[in-house]
Amino acid sequence: MSTTDKPSEDPTPGEAVTSAPDATPIGPVEPVEPVAAGPSRRRFLSALGAVTASSALLQSMTGAAPVEAAPLRRRNTPRKVRNGETVLVLGAGVGGLSAAAQLLDEGYDVKVLEALGRPGGRNFTARNGTKVVEVLKGGGSTEQECTFDKGLYLNLGPGRIPYHHRRVIEFCTRTGVALEPYIMESTANRWAGGFDSVAQTNRGVANDTRGHVAALLHQAIRKGKLANELSLLDAGQQKRLLELLVKFGDLDRGHNYAYTGSTRSGYRKPLAVDIFPEPPPPAPLAELIDAGFWDHQFYNPVDFLWQGTMFQPVGGMDKIVDALVAELPDGVITYNAPVTAIDILDDRVRVTWKEVGQTASAEVQHVVSNIPVPVLAGIRKTGFSSNYLKAIGFVQFDPSCKVGWQADKRFWENDEYQIYGGISWTNDIINQVWYPSNDYFTGKGTMTGAYNFDADAIKLGDMAPPDRLEVARESAARLHPEFADKTVVLPNGLSIAWHQVPYQAGVSVHWNPADPDAAVAYSTMLSPDQGLFYVVGDQVSPLPGWQEGALMSAEYVVDLMTDPERREPPVVHRVPDSRAMRP
Amino acid sequence: MSTTDKPSEDPTPGEAVTSAPDATPIGPVEPVEPVAAGPSRRRFLSALGAVTASSALLQSMTGAAPVEAAPLRRRNTPRKVRNGETVLVLGAGVGGLSAAAQLLDEGYDVKVLEALGRPGGRNFTARNGTKVVEVLKGGGSTEQECTFDKGLYLNLGPGRIPYHHRRVIEFCTRTGVALEPYIMESTANRWAGGFDSVAQTNRGVANDTRGHVAALLHQAIRKGKLANELSLLDAGQQKRLLELLVKFGDLDRGHNYAYTGSTRSGYRKPLAVDIFPEPPPPAPLAELIDAGFWDHQFYNPVDFLWQGTMFQPVGGMDKIVDALVAELPDGVITYNAPVTAIDILDDRVRVTWKEVGQTASAEVQHVVSNIPVPVLAGIRKTGFSSNYLKAIGFVQFDPSCKVGWQADKRFWENDEYQIYGGISWTNDIINQVWYPSNDYFTGKGTMTGAYNFDADAIKLGDMAPPDRLEVARESAARLHPEFADKTVVLPNGLSIAWHQVPYQAGVSVHWNPADPDAAVAYSTMLSPDQGLFYVVGDQVSPLPGWQEGALMSAEYVVDLMTDPERREPPVVHRVPDSRAMRP
Repeated sequence: MSTTDKPSEDPTPGEAVTSAPDATPIGPVEPVEPVAAGPSRRRFLSALGAVTASSALLQSMTGAAPVEAAPLRRRNTPRKVRNGETVLVLGAGVGGLSAAAQLLDEGYDVKVLEALGRPGGRNFTARNGTKVVEVLKGGGSTEQECTFDKGLYLNLGPGRIPYHHRRVIEFCTRTGVALEPYIMESTANRWAGGFDSVAQTNRGVANDTRGHVAALLHQAIRKGKLANELSLLDAGQQKRLLELLVKFGDLDRGHNYAYTGSTRSGYRKPLAVDIFPEPPPPAPLAELIDAGFWDHQFYNPVDFLWQGTMFQPVGGMDKIVDALVAELPDGVITYNAPVTAIDILDDRVRVTWKEVGQTASAEVQHVVSNIPVPVLAGIRKTGFSSNYLKAIGFVQFDPSCKVGWQADKRFWENDEYQIYGGISWTNDIINQVWYPSNDYFTGKGTMTGAYNFDADAIKLGDMAPPDRLEVARESAARLHPEFADKTVVLPNGLSIAWHQVPYQAGVSVHWNPADPDAAVAYSTMLSPDQGLFYVVGDQVSPLPGWQEGALMSAEYVVDLMTDPERREPPVVHRVPDSRAMRP
Repeated sequence: MSTTDKPSEDPTPGEAVTSAPDATPIGPVEPVEPVAAGPSRRRFLSALGAVTASSALLQSMTGAAPVEAAPLRRRNTPRKVRNGETVLVLGAGVGGLSAAAQLLDEGYDVKVLEALGRPGGRNFTARNGTKVVEVLKGGGSTEQECTFDKGLYLNLGPGRIPYHHRRVIEFCTRTGVALEPYIMESTANRWAGGFDSVAQTNRGVANDTRGHVAALLHQAIRKGKLANELSLLDAGQQKRLLELLVKFGDLDRGHNYAYTGSTRSGYRKPLAVDIFPEPPPPAPLAELIDAGFWDHQFYNPVDFLWQGTMFQPVGGMDKIVDALVAELPDGVITYNAPVTAIDILDDRVRVTWKEVGQTASAEVQHVVSNIPVPVLAGIRKTGFSSNYLKAIGFVQFDPSCKVGWQADKRFWENDEYQIYGGISWTNDIINQVWYPSNDYFTGKGTMTGAYNFDADAIKLGDMAPPDRLEVARESAARLHPEFADKTVVLPNGLSIAWHQVPYQAGVSVHWNPADPDAAVAYSTMLSPDQGLFYVVGDQVSPLPGWQEGALMSAEYVVDLMTDPERREPPVVHRVPDSRAMRP
C-alpha cells in the first residue's frame, strides 16, 4: 500500500476520456444509437413474492386489511420512437447505469457523465492495482494502491445480495453474472466483548441466550404467573407452549426444565469412540447480559436483509457494474467528467462539466441525476424550484469505513476456528470482521477487517491509512491472535472512509423516519423538478444503501419520464429507516 | 424409472469381479503391496477445537471441572513393517475403506470384500443409470433405474458435512474432493402443517414464534413476576435483559413491547419507491402452537450437527467414496462377494464368501468388519465369545426412506418462492423436501422429495416404488402446487427404503441411551473378539449415521490393532443418542 499526501485535484485520473468542445448540445448533433433487438432490457418481475399466501391468509384470519396484490407494472406497450429526445445521466452508479440502459431501450438519446475514472460508484471492488483516493478534512488527499496478490479481491462497497432483491438477482442471471452463496453467519463465528476478554463462539452466545430466555419463560408459565397473558390459549395449548419452549431453548427435562447447556453451543469435549456429544457449561445469563452483544449487530443475520440464502457475484461485486456497462453502447459514458453547473432553462437543462481540464456543456431535454444528493447540493444550480433546492440541501449521507486484509494463510478455517464465511462481531471500533465466502480450503484469502458507522467511522476515517490498519489489526486480534502476526495477515492492508471519497459523500443516504422534514424532502425528489430534472439511486428508494433500491429507483424514474401522465408521483409521510437497513 | 419384481439374488451385479479359488489364504500367498511413499494417509488433527478457550474459561468461572485438552493422539512412531500380517476388511463402506487405507499404511496385507457391486455402502449417489435394489418383505425384490438427465445427481445417503466434522473435511481437502456450501436453511423455506393448510415461510414461523416468546417474557419481567428467578441479576442487568429481549424478539417499543410483527418475517407489501419495509401481521401464537412445527425437525438447523457453514462435495457425496477407493491399490477390493461364514480359529479367522456363484474362503490374522451389525448377525459364525454374539444380536438399524425428483424447471427459485437450497418441513409422511445447494439459477435440478424415519419410513417403504412416488408427490404439493404437474416435476422419480436395501439393514444404527443393555453391547464391540475380530463404522461411534463417525471408528480400530498393549479398550456406560443425531 502506498499512501501519499498530495494536493486535492481530480482524484482518480482514468483512461477513457473523450475530449469534448464546450457546449456541444449532445442530442441534436449525434444520431440516436441503434437499439439492440430482443427483449427489453428491463424484464418486469411477475411478483415479488415477499407477501406470501400464508401471510395473506393470516391477515384475513386476524382481520387485518387484505394485502394488495401490488404486482409490479408490466410494460406491454410497444417501444416508442423518440427521435432526438436527449437525456443526460449524471453519475455512473448502479442507478444511473440502469436508468441509462432503460432509457436507451425507450428510444432516448442518452449520455452518461461520471466524475470518477471508473463506473460503479460505491459498488467498488479492490484488486491489485486498484487505487483508493480520499480527500482529507484538512484539504489534502490520500491515495492507497491495492497490492493484494493477483486473483484476490475485496468488495469495498456492497458485498452481498439478499435472496429477495429480485431485481439484482434477475439482472445477474439475465446478464450472466455468476452468483455464489454469500455466508452471512457461521455458528463458528465469534463475538469479542465482555467475557473477561475471551472471544466467544456465535453458537455459544446465541444458543445460551436462547436457552436462558426459554427457561425463564417456561418457569413463569409453569408457575402460573402468566395466566392473564395466556388467557387466549386453552389448557392444551398452554401445555403445548411449554413443549415448544423445551425445544426452542433445548431445556433440560431432567432438571425441571432449567437451561443447563446445550450441544447447540458445541461439545464439552472432542468426541471419541467413548466420548459422546455433551453440552458445554452454559454462559451465565449475567455474563451474556454484561457482554451487550445484541447492541453490536450480533442479530443482524436474523433480519430479513441478511437472512440466508444470500449471494455474491463470483470474482467481485463489480461484476455487476461490468455487466451494467456492457449493456451500454461504447462511448455512452464519459469518465473524469465532474459536473460543475446545472441550469434548468425553459424546456431544457444545461449541464456544464470539466473534461481534461476544459469546460464542456450540453443542453438536453432531461437530466437524471445519480449524483449523491449531498454532492449535488454543492454543484452550482440555477432554475431549480426553491422546494427542490431545499430538499437537496436537506439530505445527508452516513459515514462508514472498511478495512481489507490479505491473509497468507486461511487460519480461520483451521481446526481451532473452523470458520467458513460469515462475520465475527466486536464491541469496538472495527465492529466486524468478514471471512471470505469463496475459495474455501485454499491458501490465501482476503478479509474485511472493519466495517463501521457513525462515530466509529468518523474516528477511523480521521486517522491516516497506516494508523487505521494498526488500530484495526489490534482490534481484530481480540478475535484471533493471528492478526498480530504480519506474516499471516500481511501489512498490505487497505482502508476506505466512504465519507471522504470524492463525489461519494458517504456510504449511503441517511433517512430518519422520525423526522417529518425528511418525508417532505423524499417526496419532493420523487418528482422531476420543473418536469426536467430527476434524482435516481438507492438514495431515493425504500432500500438505502442497497443496489436493489438503485434498480427500483431507476425503473421508477424511467416510468415517470416515459409516461408522465400515467401516474401522479406519490407522496410519502415517512421515510425509510436507513439505520435499520444500512448495508 | 423401471421397477421389476424378480427373485431375490445377488442384487447389484457389478463389473469388477475377480474369480477366486476356494480357501485361498490371502496373506501368505500374495506379497505385501508396496506402500506409497509420502506422509501417512492419516494426518492427525492438532485439535478438534470443539471446546473453545471461551467455554474453558466459562467452566473455570462457573466452577465446573476444567476441560480435558484431549488432543487426538499423534502417531509419532516410525512405520512398522509387518511382513505377511493379513487383514480382511469386510464391507467397503466409508469406515471399511478408511481402515483399509490406514492398515495398508501400517504395513499390513489388506483385502476388502464387498457384498454389493459398488463401494460406499450408504454413501450412495444416484445418477442416470444407477440401480436401486430392494428386497421386499414378501421375499421378492425391486429394481429401479435412475433416469435423471445426465449431469444431474441426488445423494440417497449422506448429503451434507458439518463444519466440525474435521476428519471428513480434512480427508476431502487432502484428497482433492471439492466442497461447496450446503445450505441447510433458507428463511424462504416452507412449513406445511396447520395454518388452515396454507404453507408458511420459515421466516414467518421462526420469527413470529421468537417474537411471541420474547414478548411474554418481557411482560413477565416487567411486571415483576420473575423477581425470585432473576435475583442473581442486579437492577441494571434486569433492565438490560429487557433491552436484550426487545432485540431478540423485535418487540414493538411503540406498543408497550408487545410483539406486533417483524420485518424478519418478510414485508407486508412488495417495496416500491413509496412503499417501505413494514412487518406483515404476525401469526397468532395459538396458531403457531396448533401447527406443532417444532415436533417435525423445524429446529434441526439450530442443532450443532446442522449449523452453518455446512458443505457438500461438488458433484455428489460419492466423490468421497471415489477418493477413498483411489487411496487403495487396484485389486484390493473384491465386489459382489457377500460373506457367508466367519470362523474364529485359534490365532486366525477364516472368512467364507460367495464369488461369481462359487464359494471362496481365506484365513487371516485379523478381520475388520464394516458390515452393518444386524447383517453380521445373520452370518454364520463360530468361535465367537458369547458376549460378542450377544452384542451383535442386540444391535438394530433404523428404517428410513428417501425420494428423489428431477424437476425440469427450478420453480422454487422463482419470484414467488425465492428458495435457494435448504429444506422445507412438513408434518406428514415425507417429513421434508430438500432443494439443491448447487447449480442455482440453471434450468433443471433434483430435489429430495422425502426423507423420513420410523413409522413413516416403514409405511412408505412398504409401498411399491410407483406408489411411493404418488404419495410423495401429493404430499409435496402441500408445499408447492407445482409438484402436481408432471411436466415440471417429472415422473422419473426414484425412491429408496434403506431398511430394505440388501446388506444395509437401515439408515443407521439405533442406539438408545436410556437402555443399559445398549452400553454393554457398544462397549463389547469396542474390543476385538478373541483379539482378532473388530467392528468398525459409524455404528460404533459417537456419531451414528455420520461419515465422521465412520472415520473416527476406523482410526480407533487401527490404533487398537497396531498398538494392542497401548490402551485398554474403553467401557461406556451410556450410548450415543441416535435419534437426536440421525443424519
